Amino acid sequence: WYDKIKIRGYSQVRYNQLGATNERLVNTQGDRSIGKDGGFLIRRARLIVQGDVHERVFVYIQPDFASVVSDQYHVPTLRDWYADIALDKKKEFRFRVGQSKVPYGFENMQSSQNRAPLDRSDALNSAVKDERDLGIFFYWAPERIRKRFKALVDDGLKGSGDYGVVALGVYNGQTANQKERNDTPHVVGRITWPFQIGRQIVEIGGGGYAGKFVVKTSDDITAPDEIRDVRAHASFVLYPQPFGLQAEYNIGRGPELVGDRVVERPLHGGYVMAMAKIGNFLPYVRGVMYDGGRKFETNAPHYKIRELEMGVEWQPIPAVEATAAYAIAERTYPEPPYPQESGRLLRLQIQVNY
Amino acid sequence: WYDKIKIRGYSQVRYNQLGATNERLVNTQGDRSIGKDGGFLIRRARLIVQGDVHERVFVYIQPDFASVVSDQYHVPTLRDWYADIALDKKKEFRFRVGQSKVPYGFENMQSSQNRAPLDRSDALNSAVKDERDLGIFFYWAPERIRKRFKALVDDGLKGSGDYGVVALGVYNGQTANQKERNDTPHVVGRITWPFQIGRQIVEIGGGGYAGKFVVKTSDDITAPDEIRDVRAHASFVLYPQPFGLQAEYNIGRGPELVGDRVVERPLHGGYVMAMAKIGNFLPYVRGVMYDGGRKFETNAPHYKIRELEMGVEWQPIPAVEATAAYAIAERTYPEPPYPQESGRLLRLQIQVNY
Amino acid sequence: WYDKIKIRGYSQVRYNQLGATNERLVNTQGDRSIGKDGGFLIRRARLIVQGDVHERVFVYIQPDFASVVSDQYHVPTLRDWYADIALDKKKEFRFRVGQSKVPYGFENMQSSQNRAPLDRSDALNSAVKDERDLGIFFYWAPERIRKRFKALVDDGLKGSGDYGVVALGVYNGQTANQKERNDTPHVVGRITWPFQIGRQIVEIGGGGYAGKFVVKTSDDITAPDEIRDVRAHASFVLYPQPFGLQAEYNIGRGPELVGDRVVERPLHGGYVMAMAKIGNFLPYVRGVMYDGGRKFETNAPHYKIRELEMGVEWQPIPAVEATAAYAIAERTYPEPPYPQESGRLLRLQIQVNY
Repeated sequence: WYDKIKIRGYSQVRYNQLGATNERLVNTQGDRSIGKDGGFLIRRARLIVQGDVHERVFVYIQPDFASVVSDQYHVPTLRDWYADIALDKKKEFRFRVGQSKVPYGFENMQSSQNRAPLDRSDALNSAVKDERDLGIFFYWAPERIRKRFKALVDDGLKGSGDYGVVALGVYNGQTANQKERNDTPHVVGRITWPFQIGRQIVEIGGGGYAGKFVVKTSDDITAPDEIRDVRAHASFVLYPQPFGLQAEYNIGRGPELVGDRVVERPLHGGYVMAMAKIGNFLPYVRGVMYDGGRKFETNAPHYKIRELEMGVEWQPIPAVEATAAYAIAERTYPEPPYPQESGRLLRLQIQVNY
Repeated sequence: WYDKIKIRGYSQVRYNQLGATNERLVNTQGDRSIGKDGGFLIRRARLIVQGDVHERVFVYIQPDFASVVSDQYHVPTLRDWYADIALDKKKEFRFRVGQSKVPYGFENMQSSQNRAPLDRSDALNSAVKDERDLGIFFYWAPERIRKRFKALVDDGLKGSGDYGVVALGVYNGQTANQKERNDTPHVVGRITWPFQIGRQIVEIGGGGYAGKFVVKTSDDITAPDEIRDVRAHASFVLYPQPFGLQAEYNIGRGPELVGDRVVERPLHGGYVMAMAKIGNFLPYVRGVMYDGGRKFETNAPHYKIRELEMGVEWQPIPAVEATAAYAIAERTYPEPPYPQESGRLLRLQIQVNY
Repeated sequence: WYDKIKIRGYSQVRYNQLGATNERLVNTQGDRSIGKDGGFLIRRARLIVQGDVHERVFVYIQPDFASVVSDQYHVPTLRDWYADIALDKKKEFRFRVGQSKVPYGFENMQSSQNRAPLDRSDALNSAVKDERDLGIFFYWAPERIRKRFKALVDDGLKGSGDYGVVALGVYNGQTANQKERNDTPHVVGRITWPFQIGRQIVEIGGGGYAGKFVVKTSDDITAPDEIRDVRAHASFVLYPQPFGLQAEYNIGRGPELVGDRVVERPLHGGYVMAMAKIGNFLPYVRGVMYDGGRKFETNAPHYKIRELEMGVEWQPIPAVEATAAYAIAERTYPEPPYPQESGRLLRLQIQVNY
């Protein structure tokens, strides 16, 4: 019984202060050490406890020890705390109960342990902060595709892992580690398929979610009790053997601050990334754009984001990865009057896998 | 050395929004997803690290990862962090040092992993929030009774585990994870004995505690520096082979808000529960009543509680339990002027053991 | 892979209320249960996850579960979360990345699991709260000295463990679990050597650090954006075979409140300790003095500290240690107008190792 429980994890230490041209270019969601007074940062400190506790039950528990609670750094909060309960022995049909990733997009599903760029793109990540929520999800994938999903991770091809070829879910909708604030759950659906085409694998997917979101507001801003929050996306991945191409795009409607009132407004954004797997090195270049409200931020201000990141990930041994990247970015500053800031900076990360 | 440390745990995911007739019927101590805007809730997310690190020393460490700290959900706080130091090789005489359960009542001792009803009864649980406090406890149980306590859990009979047949303790008294706020510790004593009567086992116990409690107050409410906090209880358990009956009652005196002042007032309450163990199913019905102050709440308001819960626990495999219950309840609303609210709701839980 | 990860830890439960002569004699950094309303306290609740995940990579993860976040007791915060990446197979040359101890002094390096006195001396510990910070450190020690460092811990001689004979580092400088608040990192260097002289081992070391510190201030106090923070120390240790002697001293300049303004001021302090290892008993007597600002406290008030602690540590079995000590102390009270308080008290601790 006890032997079924395993401990593993990874951590990321960063430094973003070299060559930074604008100390007001910040990215509070992606990396709080970008900009003024950043210094060294533990970006992620993950300890995963997982195990097949029954032939049809898998538990996955992942706190992050680098969270901030009430200005106190390095307090753990949950990322995942879920159980997979399979309906069949091959685990092709599964229910996932607890807090886990909301099946929306490809990059959101892919672990940060495997992603080449340092942060997820705002375009799709703005849909679900911390990629997760609390609810019940259903996943289906045939056994041979489950094996393919697994191989895409194990072979270093930067796969997403198995979030089903069909995914359906119902969840609170206020994003991870938040109190639910209305009576209506969000619903989500996603379809994806990794096609084997000769030696190459191409994954094509798409999906969407719908719900009503409750925005936090400051004293001088008004908002309705809840606002429609709906998005659809399409994803394309050519896995890097050795050249890879990845693109995602999403459109939708959601909360956005206009004047002194939060209302429902359209949003859209996406990214394109080219990469190559050359021995232990993985160079990449990714361009991101997003125009829309950031619902989980107080007042849901409008963000306009344009970012180009060129970097190289180097993994000399399985336990250690080093990434250096150069980013050219334009972002909305997260405080009123929410001005645009642009700048460039060198980004450095050491990741340790255990 | 290292091999002596084991990891295990359990978690509970709930949904209480179906058939709810009154969104102001809430139970902040028992389940914060009852009532308005409840949604899905991880009620408990436990990870237990335990081990016999010496033939006479046992350590037990249990954080709960579903706590709320400063409005941030899913931050761990401690439940248990104690060591048992036995005086003899058979471990009949033990000192328990650290934060652990205060030996008061039967249901408080029983793990939530084993309890059939979703929440503990207010009647005895209002004595010790989170059932625990920080101090030193002494436990004595003869070896054959220690084995009986263990069997009552292992055989699925919903036992309490071994909290001694005699228990004595001294502890801070402000309940778990709180700063001590006066110079006087609480003292507690308990006696219980599981009698084997033919095939049946009947456990009868009783005990009490005494101390002085410091109440938190809002600006407009006054209270003395400390208030007497004393209770006595009696417990009866017929373990379900296959029919079980469980009843507890307690009386005492403690802090209670009267007008704009917190004073010492009498309190009393208890519950009766009938249950049956039928294969993988365990139907139960429990009636609870409590009249008295809630000392650990700001201003220690008076609570009047009447609750009837009928439910069925189903454990198809050891790793998974599902519980459905219907609750009819009248409770005091936790905000001034503390009105009574009554209602009915369907309660659903999935528990995963690992 | 998984088998390389080990779990261990230790915890300390204390009681400081016996024979206390002055309830306003407090030590908020060292032990918050000294003084009024102290009660039982879990001083440390450590769970360490560590492992050699590669022949040249070692990870060390240590949360403390007895921290306080926003008045909530028993919330975990990080102590260590680092990886050692060795440049050579003998691991003589290592980089340590993450949050870890800043190599300053001997007592700061020594684990609280091994230290005889209950708290570290204010003299050197005031340099780095929680002994740690976030950055990159380089350690060098030849293999035979690495073995000696290890033996000094394993043989119960209360060694520091291996923080190199040469240590260099760059780190944020605002102490552990804090946001970096300026653009300038701190730098630190240390040299130490454990000389074998006949049967005895004598360790002599010294070093220093420099940086700029940003002080938190209350509304009525002003401070410059950052203040120089620089210290140098010397350490001497005769390991107890059976008689030991330990002494450290440091001088420097740093932030200190003068009138209603925080300015740069000199500071100095140190301690001398005699001890003996007699079977399972380790009696000790330590005298501490410190005169200088406490930079990490709001307004960086001046502290004048004089403390004499006489105690005995008793370790009847490896898993359990009991310490009783008598302390005679004069300390600055941590609230304006920061008066001096003096008193005496009996201190009791049970430590459990697992």
